[in-house]
Amino acid sequence: MTDGQQTPPRTRTITWDDPMVGAQFGLGKSGLDYMHAMLAGQVPSPPISILMNFRLAEVENGRALFVCTPDEFHYNPIGVVHGGLICTLCDSACGCAVHTTLPAGMAYTTLDVHVHMTRPLSAQTGEIRCEGRVLHAGRRMATAEAKVTDARGKLYGHATSTCMIFPLNEG
Amino acid sequence: MTDGQQTPPRTRTITWDDPMVGAQFGLGKSGLDYMHAMLAGQVPSPPISILMNFRLAEVENGRALFVCTPDEFHYNPIGVVHGGLICTLCDSACGCAVHTTLPAGMAYTTLDVHVHMTRPLSAQTGEIRCEGRVLHAGRRMATAEAKVTDARGKLYGHATSTCMIFPLNEG
Amino acid sequence: MTDGQQTPPRTRTITWDDPMVGAQFGLGKSGLDYMHAMLAGQVPSPPISILMNFRLAEVENGRALFVCTPDEFHYNPIGVVHGGLICTLCDSACGCAVHTTLPAGMAYTTLDVHVHMTRPLSAQTGEIRCEGRVLHAGRRMATAEAKVTDARGKLYGHATSTCMIFPLNEG
Amino acid sequence: MTDGQQTPPRTRTITWDDPMVGAQFGLGKSGLDYMHAMLAGQVPSPPISILMNFRLAEVENGRALFVCTPDEFHYNPIGVVHGGLICTLCDSACGCAVHTTLPAGMAYTTLDVHVHMTRPLSAQTGEIRCEGRVLHAGRRMATAEAKVTDARGKLYGHATSTCMIFPLNEG
Repeated sequence: MTDGQQTPPRTRTITWDDPMVGAQFGLGKSGLDYMHAMLAGQVPSPPISILMNFRLAEVENGRALFVCTPDEFHYNPIGVVHGGLICTLCDSACGCAVHTTLPAGMAYTTLDVHVHMTRPLSAQTGEIRCEGRVLHAGRRMATAEAKVTDARGKLYGHATSTCMIFPLNEG
Repeated sequence: MTDGQQTPPRTRTITWDDPMVGAQFGLGKSGLDYMHAMLAGQVPSPPISILMNFRLAEVENGRALFVCTPDEFHYNPIGVVHGGLICTLCDSACGCAVHTTLPAGMAYTTLDVHVHMTRPLSAQTGEIRCEGRVLHAGRRMATAEAKVTDARGKLYGHATSTCMIFPLNEG
Repeated sequence: MTDGQQTPPRTRTITWDDPMVGAQFGLGKSGLDYMHAMLAGQVPSPPISILMNFRLAEVENGRALFVCTPDEFHYNPIGVVHGGLICTLCDSACGCAVHTTLPAGMAYTTLDVHVHMTRPLSAQTGEIRCEGRVLHAGRRMATAEAKVTDARGKLYGHATSTCMIFPLNEG
Repeated sequence: MTDGQQTPPRTRTITWDDPMVGAQFGLGKSGLDYMHAMLAGQVPSPPISILMNFRLAEVENGRALFVCTPDEFHYNPIGVVHGGLICTLCDSACGCAVHTTLPAGMAYTTLDVHVHMTRPLSAQTGEIRCEGRVLHAGRRMATAEAKVTDARGKLYGHATSTCMIFPLNEG
């Protein structure tokens, strides 16, 4: 894949907005309303999604779907996409799936995310989907799962996550 | 932190090298030699570390330390650093700690990484350290743990990971 | 639930067979054939299932179902069923689901099991089901998930697990 | 280990006390006081520890140590100790380590336990120790780790766990 010659350095410029604008916007809204506003482009995309180049594609009560095309800038030192990409997608998908279930005035924080990596991702994989679904929605905590698949349905990884839920004013 | 006014968009340009140059370089080396070459700048930094803005700081047999300063470009839609950053650091620290134990001709792949997030990270946190250590080094698999702390030793998260180990020519 | 009076001690006697008889029996068989023999009572139940009082109820390629009725002898010091029961069921369901996919001559070992506990189990819960399903079946490793539900479908916990697969003669 | 002959069935009788006596006793006490009472034999052992044959051996603020001798009645169908034993020990050690940090009036519930199994346990292993330690003690949640070792310090498994903490009267 490399012939020993010098390859030219690659470059990429990203631009993002103050993340607090979106966070403030979300304060008075239910999670689902906030996610819908994000989907509709009424809130600036969060910096992490611009950095890692993924976007929210679908959202409904208890479910969030992200899409991403793995690229060379995601690579690790052993020649494939770094596990951090799949972790980031799964963390987003689980957290947002939980967020859709919260009424205005409630907030969540992610306690843990556990990601199983079943196949390597590369710049040749093409667009992948990461779908998060709530498994248990409790009063003080919720759990969710996420699955990462390509266009043909092949599974690249899966995850579970626990989120703690609390009133915003007790944050 | 926001006054309702429009804030100007932020911008950042990153530059990286062909990740296959480093991956090829590593093929004939022990894990520890490869890590030392990376530390000495003899191998280009992997794209993910440029993207996420972290770097390898120390390495020895069974241990790898990364440092990173959380920034606004790591933020999620709810106003703090996205969990993907801590996942990426822990995945790197665990994987590289395992890598340091491998002789030339052996490779590893990460099967899972489980990250507990104990405190939120923000752009005010300052430099954080993520230290990975091997817990079990077996013939066919290894486990490692990682801890993320700030300059005062406060714990922001911790993780464990399982890696599968195999001869490179069976990859 | 207690009136301060002395309650009489409870007693239970269990009987099991040499576990090596079943293990030997399984050596020349595919995983699915071994599981079917267990289901048909042609192999003695493993000691752990007698100890914890659960049994294999259904098995097919990539799937295993166990049933169990939580009892007072499963209790922890804080007045509900100990998490060890749900862990044991999920470990069995994930491991056996993977086992069903293995041809004769291949073996597996469980590398990890991660159990989320979403509701407490008690002696009043009645019979629960723990269903394990393979998520990824690879050449050297497999992942599976398990879910624990009661007769009405309420979710008490869920788990994922990674198993390593290898030829029996390399064990 | 088996010669094809019929081996006689094994038998074991266990006796335990109403678990609610201990649970009631604990209600007005700090976690550490309750654990000390258990260690001193002032509270009946919980049924699970009699069933699985393990006992609390040491306890201090943020730390709990259990000991256990793996036996044939812990075996799975593939000829070694079932993973449920190590899960049960790790769940106990993590939960009790967290419990020691709670004042009277506060309770905890385990949200998840993730167990890595690094070596098989057998009836020849001898006594094992499972030591749990709190890693993060927060207001609403805590995390802990556990390690299982034999008399020579060999590592058989390790775990992490998240517990939710809440006032008893909000249980």
